[in-house]
Amino acid sequence: MLWSLPDGIDTPALVIDLDTLSANIDSMASQMLAIGVALRPHVKTHKSPQIARMQINAGGRGVTVASLGEAEVFAASGFDDIFIAYPLYPAGSKASRLRALAGGMRPSVGVDSIDAARALAGAVPAPDCLTVLIELDSGQHRSGVAPEAAVDLALRCGELGLDVGGVFTHGGHSYRPSAAAAAAADESRTLDLAVEYLAAAGVTAPTVSAGSTPTAIASAVGRVTEERPGTYVFNDRQQLALGTAKPRDVAVAVAATVVSTAVGGQAVIDAGSKALASDRPDWLSGHGAVPELGDATVAALSECHGMVRLGAQPTPAIGTVVRVVPNHICTAVNLFDYYEVVSGGQLVDRWPIAARGHLS
Amino acid sequence: MLWSLPDGIDTPALVIDLDTLSANIDSMASQMLAIGVALRPHVKTHKSPQIARMQINAGGRGVTVASLGEAEVFAASGFDDIFIAYPLYPAGSKASRLRALAGGMRPSVGVDSIDAARALAGAVPAPDCLTVLIELDSGQHRSGVAPEAAVDLALRCGELGLDVGGVFTHGGHSYRPSAAAAAAADESRTLDLAVEYLAAAGVTAPTVSAGSTPTAIASAVGRVTEERPGTYVFNDRQQLALGTAKPRDVAVAVAATVVSTAVGGQAVIDAGSKALASDRPDWLSGHGAVPELGDATVAALSECHGMVRLGAQPTPAIGTVVRVVPNHICTAVNLFDYYEVVSGGQLVDRWPIAARGHLS
Repeated sequence: MLWSLPDGIDTPALVIDLDTLSANIDSMASQMLAIGVALRPHVKTHKSPQIARMQINAGGRGVTVASLGEAEVFAASGFDDIFIAYPLYPAGSKASRLRALAGGMRPSVGVDSIDAARALAGAVPAPDCLTVLIELDSGQHRSGVAPEAAVDLALRCGELGLDVGGVFTHGGHSYRPSAAAAAAADESRTLDLAVEYLAAAGVTAPTVSAGSTPTAIASAVGRVTEERPGTYVFNDRQQLALGTAKPRDVAVAVAATVVSTAVGGQAVIDAGSKALASDRPDWLSGHGAVPELGDATVAALSECHGMVRLGAQPTPAIGTVVRVVPNHICTAVNLFDYYEVVSGGQLVDRWPIAARGHLS
Repeated sequence: MLWSLPDGIDTPALVIDLDTLSANIDSMASQMLAIGVALRPHVKTHKSPQIARMQINAGGRGVTVASLGEAEVFAASGFDDIFIAYPLYPAGSKASRLRALAGGMRPSVGVDSIDAARALAGAVPAPDCLTVLIELDSGQHRSGVAPEAAVDLALRCGELGLDVGGVFTHGGHSYRPSAAAAAAADESRTLDLAVEYLAAAGVTAPTVSAGSTPTAIASAVGRVTEERPGTYVFNDRQQLALGTAKPRDVAVAVAATVVSTAVGGQAVIDAGSKALASDRPDWLSGHGAVPELGDATVAALSECHGMVRLGAQPTPAIGTVVRVVPNHICTAVNLFDYYEVVSGGQLVDRWPIAARGHLS
């Protein structure tokens, strides 16, 4: 990490280095431009209209969100090309909220069942106010249909009057060591297959969308027209462990203060599971890394305590302020209300995490 | 669980059953009254002045909080007996904020180092605006000093002009199967020992405070004057697994909608790690239980997807609304902005989670 914390930050705090952030945004945008694939960054990572605007200015086509609530926040901030990459089921107030959103723009929504498609068609003033993208399962086995099943679902969406804009997938099984190349190949092969089946049935798929940060470049082949990475703007301990990012690419950290060293071999910091989140894949031990303490590991978490295992590292003084690189930045960001924005080692701004809590 | 969800809840949502909540609050208060020990509930669980008021009305002496920010929220809501059970280090704006808090009331603050004690004494207008409680390590090995070290720390706090109000500990090692009885004994033995050492040095300890939900009753022996349980108001999947609570004691659940059943044997709900939190102790598998689906387990989480493993359970219809009992309710609550309050199966109120995000 090439940046440092300014003095006087109240901890725990979420701190962005603006220069690293800008470099990450530019790097992904220029790689996508070079290979001729559109970039539609997933803004669930940062939930910040300011950062999404930087991504669009760098060449992003539009934004990807995970919920109707996130779509509303970004629409209210002037974004008019929004893909809700989620199998949205518009019950309760979601039907009227989707209607309001579709009245002001034409959002795209993921669909992987005829039941949800029917509910979506019924929720909006006219079904063609919405574009639906058929979700495909490319190997994560979370949601999405098999390529063979895409044709039936697309035809039935068409019968409901919905505009079928194409297909999408998320190769989330890329989040294991050495898994990214195979997951990227799974994504592009699954998408290609579905496009072929659809073409044979007379259905065109203008949008063919893949993406995760580990697979964003490698899956941009074949018929893929668009990538949706999210985490690349910030990076985190998972991306470092996967080799997707290097320490100089880490743009965000949680600033924390050493509050207790009463137990030998351990420094307790004021960032626990309510500041770092508890996400921990089975291939990663601990909950964060502390560059100021020789990359010591946050070995355990309570809600407001992080237990840093010092190893050979000397015990820091009570009051020492350190940075923590969390395992998964998307869920850590989701715990804070704003970013402290740093540039050249100085605090320059504070940005609200505007879509935090807009889960529904 | 003896309660059910009303129709029309927008998911994911955090839902309280008011009747179960009231019963839990009354049960703990009357048990504490019966054994003659004061109850100072830890409000980091719910972060809600409404619920804290119910706890005080039932006989609670005051509240326990985990951060200065939480103390500020509860002070602004009229609570005037607040213990910050945390080794607070008042740097940055925390010094002036602590001064402002101590100007309006006399908060108690945990301390386990002379460095923090010195900073606390320097932060307030006069050191005797604060009461400090010496934190003891009773076996969790997180923070706190050994009973033998309490005397030196207490004497040095006294030299700084700080009012030493007593001792406290948290037997967090109670959070393992069959560990509660031994952890409770560790708490009371450690506190007793420290009180004896202090008495021998001429230091009185009016407050002798223990507590966690699993140990709240069993540790209320010997010289213990006060208990600080938090989770008992709501309970969660951990408390069920530990045997501290029964299903009828679970007062809060996350309401979620089945959004995808495209992958066989699995129902995907719209509550992921951003609604349930990822906390999972190594003695518990999965991330939540779904009573409406035969107590099926949320086997895996993405940020906005929960993957429910159905087993022999029939596949639910897309759009089915279910409850999830999260592993750890304190971190799940911390993800939402308000509670939907239900009584007799009807939605009766919405309460803000006022101290959410007040980490620092």
